[in-house]
Amino acid sequence: MTTSTQIKGYVEEIGRRARAAASVLANAPTSVKNGALLAMAQSVEKEASSLIAANRVDLQAAEKAGIGASVRQRLAITEKTIREMSEGLRQVVSLADPVGEVLGEWDRPNGLKIRKVRVPIGVIAMIYEARPNVTADAAALCIKSGNAVILRGGREALNSNIALSRLLQRAAANAGLPEAALQLIERVEHRVVSELLTLNAYIDLVIPRGGEELIRKVAEISTIPVIKHYKGVCHVYVDMAADLSMAESIVLNAKVQKPAVCNAAEALLIHEGIARSFLPRIAARLREKGVELRGDPGARAIVPDMKTATEKDWGCEFLDLILAVRVVKDMDEAIAYIARYGSHHSDAIVTSDKIAAERFLREVDSSAVFWNASTRFNDGGQFGMGAEIGISTDRIHARGPMALPELTIYKYVVTGSGQVRE
Amino acid sequence: MTTSTQIKGYVEEIGRRARAAASVLANAPTSVKNGALLAMAQSVEKEASSLIAANRVDLQAAEKAGIGASVRQRLAITEKTIREMSEGLRQVVSLADPVGEVLGEWDRPNGLKIRKVRVPIGVIAMIYEARPNVTADAAALCIKSGNAVILRGGREALNSNIALSRLLQRAAANAGLPEAALQLIERVEHRVVSELLTLNAYIDLVIPRGGEELIRKVAEISTIPVIKHYKGVCHVYVDMAADLSMAESIVLNAKVQKPAVCNAAEALLIHEGIARSFLPRIAARLREKGVELRGDPGARAIVPDMKTATEKDWGCEFLDLILAVRVVKDMDEAIAYIARYGSHHSDAIVTSDKIAAERFLREVDSSAVFWNASTRFNDGGQFGMGAEIGISTDRIHARGPMALPELTIYKYVVTGSGQVRE
Repeated sequence: MTTSTQIKGYVEEIGRRARAAASVLANAPTSVKNGALLAMAQSVEKEASSLIAANRVDLQAAEKAGIGASVRQRLAITEKTIREMSEGLRQVVSLADPVGEVLGEWDRPNGLKIRKVRVPIGVIAMIYEARPNVTADAAALCIKSGNAVILRGGREALNSNIALSRLLQRAAANAGLPEAALQLIERVEHRVVSELLTLNAYIDLVIPRGGEELIRKVAEISTIPVIKHYKGVCHVYVDMAADLSMAESIVLNAKVQKPAVCNAAEALLIHEGIARSFLPRIAARLREKGVELRGDPGARAIVPDMKTATEKDWGCEFLDLILAVRVVKDMDEAIAYIARYGSHHSDAIVTSDKIAAERFLREVDSSAVFWNASTRFNDGGQFGMGAEIGISTDRIHARGPMALPELTIYKYVVTGSGQVRE
Repeated sequence: MTTSTQIKGYVEEIGRRARAAASVLANAPTSVKNGALLAMAQSVEKEASSLIAANRVDLQAAEKAGIGASVRQRLAITEKTIREMSEGLRQVVSLADPVGEVLGEWDRPNGLKIRKVRVPIGVIAMIYEARPNVTADAAALCIKSGNAVILRGGREALNSNIALSRLLQRAAANAGLPEAALQLIERVEHRVVSELLTLNAYIDLVIPRGGEELIRKVAEISTIPVIKHYKGVCHVYVDMAADLSMAESIVLNAKVQKPAVCNAAEALLIHEGIARSFLPRIAARLREKGVELRGDPGARAIVPDMKTATEKDWGCEFLDLILAVRVVKDMDEAIAYIARYGSHHSDAIVTSDKIAAERFLREVDSSAVFWNASTRFNDGGQFGMGAEIGISTDRIHARGPMALPELTIYKYVVTGSGQVRE
């Protein structure tokens, strides 16, 4: 038997088990799913020391391999990570079960009664990078929404993920769910991923989480539907009619509150009518916070000591304390700029002009558009949805924060009294 | 310049024009879209003779090429096709515009107001086979839902599609929509399709319509999301507690009313407790209608002169007057059989037992499940949604009939008063 046949067999067996588990999960009562999630939370707490020990093996290997400090930090399981994982699991218990929700109900003239009912998607494969806490978070959201999940974490976190997934599996099984409700791919060969991404018979949806390159590769290889969480090149446009202190606090928050995330602002657009009064003051505040500004000629005419932005800076996701700055002639130019350079993620306007705001909200084609609020609010928790699996940049199924309902689909349940079609 | 560079340039230019048209369409008022659809309907009627003439060229070429009568029949544009196309266009005018619908609206404790609003998907590529009326139907549904559409019809229908798409374009443009709201791919090279299916920058969704092989190929090649309309292997399960005359009319309807469509029944499952009384009578009725029965040993024990079903018959989409017949021990066996051999499309139970029915409706995982009604009702028109673009067998975005709302997605519109994230 060749290795590639072995790998195919290994992945298929996982798929088959996931499919069988999915049909049990689809009909599992909320109480059983919640019981499993609680047991999983308790197990993470109880087994903290063995998780940390397994993680130490990964951390040492990473250090030996010369992996950088920031990746090792994301890889680390600490007391705090343990607490966050168990809190995350408990939080999902408190969220409403989406399965069975009636999305619509109507009668037809021939007497048929039609109900549109939420059901799980089925089997979801998650492909992600270093952070082992994704293992617990993704398992919780998939299980609560009635889906079986196949997890494929980063190679650097393999020991941690094996320890974690096994204890989660045991806890779920003891609480009455199928063990295969969650399964980890324990083989590290690259080939595993391409087998997984073409296992259409057993997998219904693939969700990659990580860098742009990983996501693009998954989307290219996969013959299974993929929901993508690409980058956020987010803008704040400060309109002529903006309240300047409000604009100041929104721009600051959007840029510096957490610069390394997808809903942080990467570019500031300022209406030329207020640029002379607003730009010097916001530039000073941003620089106090350590932000490097890269401006167009219009911006540099007002604040000459900022760097000149190059073409590469427009549309760049810096994920850092860097901000591209541009003075625009009017809102037309702002909207056209965002359409050209943005990533349709999160964009904001600051203005007191209701008509201008409404136009911006309508014409800017992003997963979330904000009027007088920070782009940082594009988030499942901030929107009140509870935990999220990511912020989708796709234009089908789910757009913006993906929480429990976004991990479901629906079916039509039709009740008749002998109707036939003419 | 090589041909492949030319083709790439040709397809990209179409994509670019579609994207530009999409941003106009996204904000087009309902009245303008309806005006365009009416103008398109009038134009189809007025230009009927030139459409029929263009179609004659295709029909003659098809005959010369030895293409079979059934394909040529689907290819033909007759007075009746003209009427159906123009009626189809007018019907879409009468449907509610999904764009702008508020799907949800809530306030956050910090005062943010969140609205979830329907918006178009963007640019949709339709890839389909011989029937030229799909050109008009797909254009109408995409335009009404605010999407630009790129059409790639079958090579056999090229002359017809060129004539049709040009007159539809002219009518739409005269009514104030961008000409590129609909565009036909006029080049016939296979290469065009692979360029189209990887044009991620300009196309948001691909919908193939046609045989299983076409759909599978599109799903394999495409790096753009695809919504698939695969086959329907639909079942009617006649339970022990069924009203037998109701069961008779439902089985007959599901099988013979239109056997060549995806929601027609392909297999009949009968509870062994009523098989002796029900099977002879339904077999006689089905045979009167010309249906060939292929039974398992249990069915043949009761009606010995039916053909023996082979393994290939279970799960087969006959699309013809053929029905697989099986006697099952109980509902468990029926549900397990449907899970194994069905295609999750449309499945029905006939029973007077409410508890049995509810279990069947819950556990059978199909886009539509029916209790005491024919599977033939799984249809956009029959569900009251108006025209449909197909019946999705996918498990994300849209499942079952895809009408106007299923051609949209949403965005979040957030209104604040200076909120920033802590």
